[in-house]
Amino acid sequence: MTQAGSDGGQPTSPLTREEVADLLRRVPGWKMIGNAIEREFRFPDFRDAMVFVNKVAEAAERQEHHPDIVISYNRVHLVLTTHKAGGLTRRDFALAAAIDELIRAGAAG
Amino acid sequence: MTQAGSDGGQPTSPLTREEVADLLRRVPGWKMIGNAIEREFRFPDFRDAMVFVNKVAEAAERQEHHPDIVISYNRVHLVLTTHKAGGLTRRDFALAAAIDELIRAGAAG
Repeated sequence: MTQAGSDGGQPTSPLTREEVADLLRRVPGWKMIGNAIEREFRFPDFRDAMVFVNKVAEAAERQEHHPDIVISYNRVHLVLTTHKAGGLTRRDFALAAAIDELIRAGAAG
Repeated sequence: MTQAGSDGGQPTSPLTREEVADLLRRVPGWKMIGNAIEREFRFPDFRDAMVFVNKVAEAAERQEHHPDIVISYNRVHLVLTTHKAGGLTRRDFALAAAIDELIRAGAAG
C-alpha cells in the first residue's frame, strides 16, 4: 500500500493546484501566499517565542527543510516553500503539520 | 564624570541626526534604513545561524531591547529601532555593538 505522503517517492515534486487545495485543508492555520504557505504565531513574550523558534528549528533540521522565520518580539511568522521546486511540495506541508503539532504539544511551555 | 552612553539617563530618547551619524561610525556593518539600523549576517549553514540567533536573543533579553530577526537558512537579518521613541535611540546602538561583539567572539562556533 502506497501512502500519499512524503513516503511517496518524490516529496520535492511541485504539487498541482488540486493537491495544494487538499493539503491546505489539513493545516487550516496556514494561508497560501504566492508560491508559499505562511502562518503567524503569537506568544506571551519574546522568550516564549524563542522557545518555539528553537523547536521549529529542530523540526526543520530533522526534515532537512527550512522555513523563513521572522521574529518580532512575541510574534513568529513562518514562510514555507520549496525553492528548488519553484513552488509548494509535500515537504512544505509535512513541516507545516509538524509545526502545528508543536503548538498542540505546547511549544511555548 | 558623565558618560555619553546608555548610562546618560535617557537611553530611550530619540537621537538627533548628528548623534546617529556619530554612533553609526562605531558600528560600521550596520546601515540606517528609515527609522532603523539593519545588518545581515551569513553563516555556513542553518545550524550556525541558529546558534547566532540564540546569542542575539540572550543579548536582547539582557538589554531588554529586541531586534526584529529574519532567518533565511544561513542568513540572519537584524533590524533595530525603538518603537516607543519613534526612531533610533542609544539602546539600538548598544545592542548593535553587543551583537557585533558576538561575531568578533565567534558566535557561530
